[in-house]
Amino acid sequence: MTASPHAAAHRATELEIQRLLRHGAALPGDLPLPDHHQLWTAFSQAADGGKRFRPALLLSTHSALGGTRERAAVQVAAALELLHTALVVQDDVIDGDQLRRGVPSVSGGVAADARRAGSSPEAARRLGEAAGILAGDLGLIAAMRAIARCEAPAPVVDRLLDLFESTLHATAAGELADVRLQLGPADGHVVLRESLAVAELKTALYSFQLPLRAGALLADASPEVLLALDEIGCLLGIGFQLLDDLLGVFGDERRTGKSALGDLREGKRTALIAHASTTDAWPALHPLLGRADLDEADARRARELLTDGGSRAWVEDVARWHLSSATEAAARHDLPPALVTALDLTTHQMLRAADLPLPDHEGLPV
Amino acid sequence: MTASPHAAAHRATELEIQRLLRHGAALPGDLPLPDHHQLWTAFSQAADGGKRFRPALLLSTHSALGGTRERAAVQVAAALELLHTALVVQDDVIDGDQLRRGVPSVSGGVAADARRAGSSPEAARRLGEAAGILAGDLGLIAAMRAIARCEAPAPVVDRLLDLFESTLHATAAGELADVRLQLGPADGHVVLRESLAVAELKTALYSFQLPLRAGALLADASPEVLLALDEIGCLLGIGFQLLDDLLGVFGDERRTGKSALGDLREGKRTALIAHASTTDAWPALHPLLGRADLDEADARRARELLTDGGSRAWVEDVARWHLSSATEAAARHDLPPALVTALDLTTHQMLRAADLPLPDHEGLPV
Repeated sequence: MTASPHAAAHRATELEIQRLLRHGAALPGDLPLPDHHQLWTAFSQAADGGKRFRPALLLSTHSALGGTRERAAVQVAAALELLHTALVVQDDVIDGDQLRRGVPSVSGGVAADARRAGSSPEAARRLGEAAGILAGDLGLIAAMRAIARCEAPAPVVDRLLDLFESTLHATAAGELADVRLQLGPADGHVVLRESLAVAELKTALYSFQLPLRAGALLADASPEVLLALDEIGCLLGIGFQLLDDLLGVFGDERRTGKSALGDLREGKRTALIAHASTTDAWPALHPLLGRADLDEADARRARELLTDGGSRAWVEDVARWHLSSATEAAARHDLPPALVTALDLTTHQMLRAADLPLPDHEGLPV
Repeated sequence: MTASPHAAAHRATELEIQRLLRHGAALPGDLPLPDHHQLWTAFSQAADGGKRFRPALLLSTHSALGGTRERAAVQVAAALELLHTALVVQDDVIDGDQLRRGVPSVSGGVAADARRAGSSPEAARRLGEAAGILAGDLGLIAAMRAIARCEAPAPVVDRLLDLFESTLHATAAGELADVRLQLGPADGHVVLRESLAVAELKTALYSFQLPLRAGALLADASPEVLLALDEIGCLLGIGFQLLDDLLGVFGDERRTGKSALGDLREGKRTALIAHASTTDAWPALHPLLGRADLDEADARRARELLTDGGSRAWVEDVARWHLSSATEAAARHDLPPALVTALDLTTHQMLRAADLPLPDHEGLPV
């Protein structure tokens, strides 16, 4: 397998994303108000600079399964990226996040512009939130339309639309549950169980199951392969979310691009923190969380408590278990070697990003 | 023209809406969290009890133009109602409205449930807003999927998808502009001009142009008819929004079902208020607006100022001008008599609801 066909598909996907963004910019024609330009420009900027991880997963799945619908795969891959952008933009509204990947979020950027133009902080915040909600809507609609119009036979398009819709229902449920957990009282074991369910619904389904299944549908894969990919996508996705929780507290800021104080300052109720609430470290840890003035010394203390109380090791173990189970499932279900390789590569990239040792299994060709 | 084919189409649309809502309820299968049930139940309740005005406009346009795609028309009509519900649900988040048609909005209802379960007011508000955003997303997706899968030929479906997308871009721009106008400083003449543009983008396009054009596309109408309907839809829609602004301040609460204090308490920057800001009544009126403790005596005073200052008459005139221009355009463009009748009926129903005399024109068969 040479790199060039993949590289060509990735370039084509990037072009398709940019084409969809230009299409949206021109859509409503000449409007008598400046607000559409502001809205779509902010969305387009949010769509730039992503790692295009979900499109890559779709494209490699489609091609590893022998799919030949290159054009449709590129179109659906681009739709996945717009969907991801829309969810991220609205997530920032829901969480009140002003920054994303170190630059202003859509809601944060529009609010900052309004403040500079003389709005009160409250008025600016409300305008920014409206912009984030509406930009997300337009991104979702663009993604749905791109799928509805992709160049695959009608029965495949219908299945893709159904997949998209059911995935979004689960993602929305996971997002709402996440907010509920963040805001509710900390009831250790319940929160721990639910935080794993949130990781599955909010992240695993749309970031892993959806690209894998969409690539497989486009490749006319068998029902057995589809079910195997659902299982693998769920395992990979939960593993990914757990590693992301670890990186949010223990990660190297220079590599993750986000502050390792953010999650602690926000008091984010991740599986890591949910586990800690069931340990003896909790009485000392709890007062440190959710403080906007948490400093580097506090963060060091919190990291020590999470490490010494066993929460860090527990989350690492659970993450590794999910990722190695995914690798084992890929082998057990007798998937094509090219797909096993692609999935294994994904797993190893995740573990390397988290500075964790590779999982202890029999080893598959990488 | 007898009533029964219309009544049958309306019943079929209601059944289709309920089918789509049941489909959504069952979509993600067995989830490990209760949040999907809460989200979709709240959306389904919001979808109940609407007047189904937009579906009716689509169905009568399709049938008056001799369309024979009854099933597809019903499917797209149902999609329009889900779209409308989604926009309303997110509008309530953006405006911070806890009530809609006298019952809790999605965001207001979820927040109230959370407060009853012991959440702080702030935590409950944030959970309610998340629910409103996410429920709206699912409604938008359901509407797009219903259109993508409607039983019309592929080229018609493509045109409907494009129409939906471009309409939503304009609607989102209008919604954002509305928030901007509400929050910004009152600069009379600019706000007046922009508030008419907001009425066009935020309401007229999706509530009037979209149903008219969708019905016409399904009936394979000529480009001339489509352009005529765009013009008429825009005029009707702006007229409708202006009448709605009047009803929000001067309406009979028993007939409108909403408080005639709400818009004044909110200090809503409608065309009526924008006009008043250019009159001598403004210095006396301005301090009354946007006060949560505004009472019936204050409201009477505000109504007097709006009436004596000429703003009420001005908005009535502009509304009537738009509605009679729509009627004249329908005659001028030589539309089929059944469609002219349907549009005239719509106009007269709007004027009757606003207790305004019928427009002074040559008269068309009603």
